[in-house]
Order: sequence, then C-alpha cells, then structure tokens
Amino acid sequence: MSEGLQIQGLSALVLTISDRSAAGERQDASGDAIGERLQRLGLAVERLVVPDDRRRISGALIAGTSRHRLVVTTGGTGLTPRDVTPQATADVIDYEVPGLAEAMRAEGRRHTPMADLSRGLVGVRGRSLVVNLPGSPKGATESLEAIVPTLGHALETLAGPFDHQSHAGRPDLPRGDAQRTRAGSA
Amino acid sequence: MSEGLQIQGLSALVLTISDRSAAGERQDASGDAIGERLQRLGLAVERLVVPDDRRRISGALIAGTSRHRLVVTTGGTGLTPRDVTPQATADVIDYEVPGLAEAMRAEGRRHTPMADLSRGLVGVRGRSLVVNLPGSPKGATESLEAIVPTLGHALETLAGPFDHQSHAGRPDLPRGDAQRTRAGSA
Amino acid sequence: MSEGLQIQGLSALVLTISDRSAAGERQDASGDAIGERLQRLGLAVERLVVPDDRRRISGALIAGTSRHRLVVTTGGTGLTPRDVTPQATADVIDYEVPGLAEAMRAEGRRHTPMADLSRGLVGVRGRSLVVNLPGSPKGATESLEAIVPTLGHALETLAGPFDHQSHAGRPDLPRGDAQRTRAGSA
Repeated sequence: MSEGLQIQGLSALVLTISDRSAAGERQDASGDAIGERLQRLGLAVERLVVPDDRRRISGALIAGTSRHRLVVTTGGTGLTPRDVTPQATADVIDYEVPGLAEAMRAEGRRHTPMADLSRGLVGVRGRSLVVNLPGSPKGATESLEAIVPTLGHALETLAGPFDHQSHAGRPDLPRGDAQRTRAGSA
Repeated sequence: MSEGLQIQGLSALVLTISDRSAAGERQDASGDAIGERLQRLGLAVERLVVPDDRRRISGALIAGTSRHRLVVTTGGTGLTPRDVTPQATADVIDYEVPGLAEAMRAEGRRHTPMADLSRGLVGVRGRSLVVNLPGSPKGATESLEAIVPTLGHALETLAGPFDHQSHAGRPDLPRGDAQRTRAGSA
Repeated sequence: MSEGLQIQGLSALVLTISDRSAAGERQDASGDAIGERLQRLGLAVERLVVPDDRRRISGALIAGTSRHRLVVTTGGTGLTPRDVTPQATADVIDYEVPGLAEAMRAEGRRHTPMADLSRGLVGVRGRSLVVNLPGSPKGATESLEAIVPTLGHALETLAGPFDHQSHAGRPDLPRGDAQRTRAGSA
C-alpha cells in the first residue's frame, strides 16, 4: 500500500506560525520540510505564514479548512505565553483527536525528551483535519512522520460518507467522492 | 492475584453505540466480545444498544452509571461528525481519567496505528467508571485488555470509602462495602 | 550537561496535598522524597502541606506560582471524588502542557499499570510550571524522574524572554535573567 496513492487527490495547507518568518527575518525551513513531505505523499500543497497572533492563526485555520482537507501548522506550540497555536486551534476545531497528538509526542520522545514540551493539538473542523506540529524542522518532520501511517485513512474517512461499518474492519474508501470534492474546491 | 476474583461482586453495562446494530441490521460482535470478557473477569453484565445520537448516548450513560459501577461503550469514537460518543461521555462525566485512555491507545498503537484515531474518553460519574472503546471487535477487545490490570483496583477504589492512605501503598480494599452497594442497587 | 547546573538559581514549592498529613497524622514521605530530589537538581525548595480541599489547593498554587518558577504537588490525583488536585490545578493554570503528563504516565506504566490512574496535570501559570505528581512516594518520584530531562529547559524557557528562535535549535538560555528574577522575588 503506497502512501502516495493513499492521499493523492487531496490538498493541504502548510501554515507556518512565526513572527520572524512572517516578517521575512527567518527562512521557513520547517514549512519547506513539511510541504515537501506532504507533496511526496501525493497532496497538493499551499503555503502560508502568519505571526504568533491567536486571532490571525484562528482566521488562517478557518480559511484553510474551508479550502483543504488537511491543515498542518508548524510553530507556536511551546511553553511560553507567546506560543498560542494550540489555543488558536482549540478556538476553531469541532473536537480533538487526542490519539494523534499523543502518537506524535510518543514518537518524538524516542528521539528527544524535549518533544514532551510541544503542546500541539490535532482536531477536526468540518471535514478537515488540523495538525499542530512543533516549530523546529526536526521536531516538525519527526512528529509528522508519526502520523503518516494513519493520515490517508483519516482524510478519506473525513471526506467520505460517514459509514460506521467502514470503522469496523476493512475500510471501503470513498475515493471518487474525495476526488470530486477536491476538484470542486480547487 | 486473579482478575476474576478482583472484580467479582460488581456489575457492568456494555453499551453498544451503532445506528446499524440499533436498527437490527448488524450483529453486535463488539458488544458480544466485551460482554464475554467482562463476565470472565467476574462482572455481571447488562447489554444495551443505542444509535449514534448524542442525547440518547448521554441518557444511557446516566441511567447506566446509576445501576452499574462500570459502563463500557463500544462504537462512535471515530473521526467523523457522526461519531459523538466522546462528546456524549464528556457531557455526563464528573472528570476524566486521561491515563486510561492514553494506555488503551498506547497499547492499540502496538497492533495498528489506526488505534490513534479513536477519540475515546475514560471518566468518572459519581462512583462509576465510564470507558469508551472503539467500535471494531478487535479494537474494542485490545483496548479493553490494556486496562484490565487496573480495572479491579479502579472499581474498588471508586466503590469504597475514600481513604487516601489506600493510594499510598497496599490498597485495603472495601470488598464488603462494594458488595453491599451492588446488592442494594441490583 | 549537569542537571544540577541547569536548574540552579531557581526555586520550587513542594505542595503536599493530604488530609492526614495536614492534620499531622501521617508523615509526608512523598514531599520529603520530591523535595530532596529537587534540591539535588539545584533548586531551592519550600514545603507546604494542605488538605484535599479544592479552594485551599488553588489558593496555594496561586501563592506558590507567585513566588516560585516551579510548583510540584503530590497527592489528590486519584480516581475518587475526594481527589481534587487536577481540578484545582485546572482552575488556576493558563494552559496545559499535556506531553509532560503523558510522559510521566508512560514512564510510570513501565513500572506499574496503576500509574494510569493518576489524573495529574502539568500546566503553566504566568511564568511558572505546575506539576501534579501522584501521592505515593514511589509513584511521585518515578513520575518526577520522567520529566527531569526536560525540566531545566522548561523552566528557563518560561523564565526567559520569549524568543521563538530558541525553540528552533540550540537554546540560548537566559541564565542571568532567571537568576535576577529569582533574586528579586526571594
């Protein structure tokens, strides 16, 4: 089962949250790395950079989830009061998917205990998945890698008709529907 | 220390949440598997099936926790807006027990990364424990197995007089009290 | 990199939450063990004991975080309605740091499945970190040990100017500032 095939036909927004990148003072290495990885998975990728401002982030998440099945943020998940990405995400998601955030940190912890300091959330808004990754390129890519095995199934489940039977065993994935939806919004 | 002995004298509700099972269109294989496992642990088991409706689920949880020390749900924990079991559970519990939900997903992740997609909660209402398991028989039984080692102690702690010293070392479990309480409510 | 050097210059409150210890009926073995461990890390340690009362605990957390960069509680994280430490903590923190609570339980689970029953939170209030440990000396010290590798960086990040660049790679830690701040509040 190829990951590229799994997710192709959908699109993603990579939302970099960084005062410095927004001001053009820092290269957006994390956004580059995440965008490249998602493209290799078959996703069409849009990029956006916003500063560490709760309302700016929430607004970008609302707009992003209206156009994309997946919005992946990087940055603003740390310990300080300046880090507001999880709060801005909580403001706009319908519900959390705690297991994906736990999985990212559990995997990250195998590389560095600092992974525990990311307060990133994963949640659903409408039929779109929102994933908060840490701000460092290494932390962001390691965290993303931890959820790659589930990402295709997650996006197709959200995109498809909500058939509970598909949770019970072999998923019968709504490929055509996901592709039509994306074609309509692209 | 036998798990069967640990939990005997208490009862549980197995609450299956499934539109199809509620309509009689699907066999309730998960409910069967969970019910059988709990009986082997020594619990008296009641069964109930409700559709994926937040208020119906909440109502069943309120009624179930008034009669049983343990309510185990299966189904409705997935990613889609039709999956409302965690929300219905959050509506009625007094507080969460996040470690048990984390433990179920951590164990499930060893078998399949799809375990991360279950949004199931564990919480306490009154003196009863509520546990959300996934909907598939395999996912539900693997998740349940992850908390079996703590279940007896958890239920007896909730059933007994709240003696903080019992948390500090050897639990001095209130067996007689738990049995009286159950006899009174059965 | 010595842990003792990392954290020196800061102070911590060890807050024991126990009706019996508050009444002088039980020795505060957990508080002793945690206090000793934090001192070995280089922290100056204050001790306080309060009963299992939500408002008393919240009050102690507010006062403690006004004087210390770190407040570590022990006790009151169990399953019963008498255990209110997580609720009292949620009342006063600005936001949670879920990864540290997950890390403590994941480490604890390697020793005993009972670790899953601790409902302890980790959160930030202002520029201080609040950590809920379980009540037993063994559970408390094992949980604390799980976050020792991140504690120095966490406290210095919170104490310093909020420079997002420091999250992206090598932290350039604001040692002098942290020491001045502490000197000013001591």
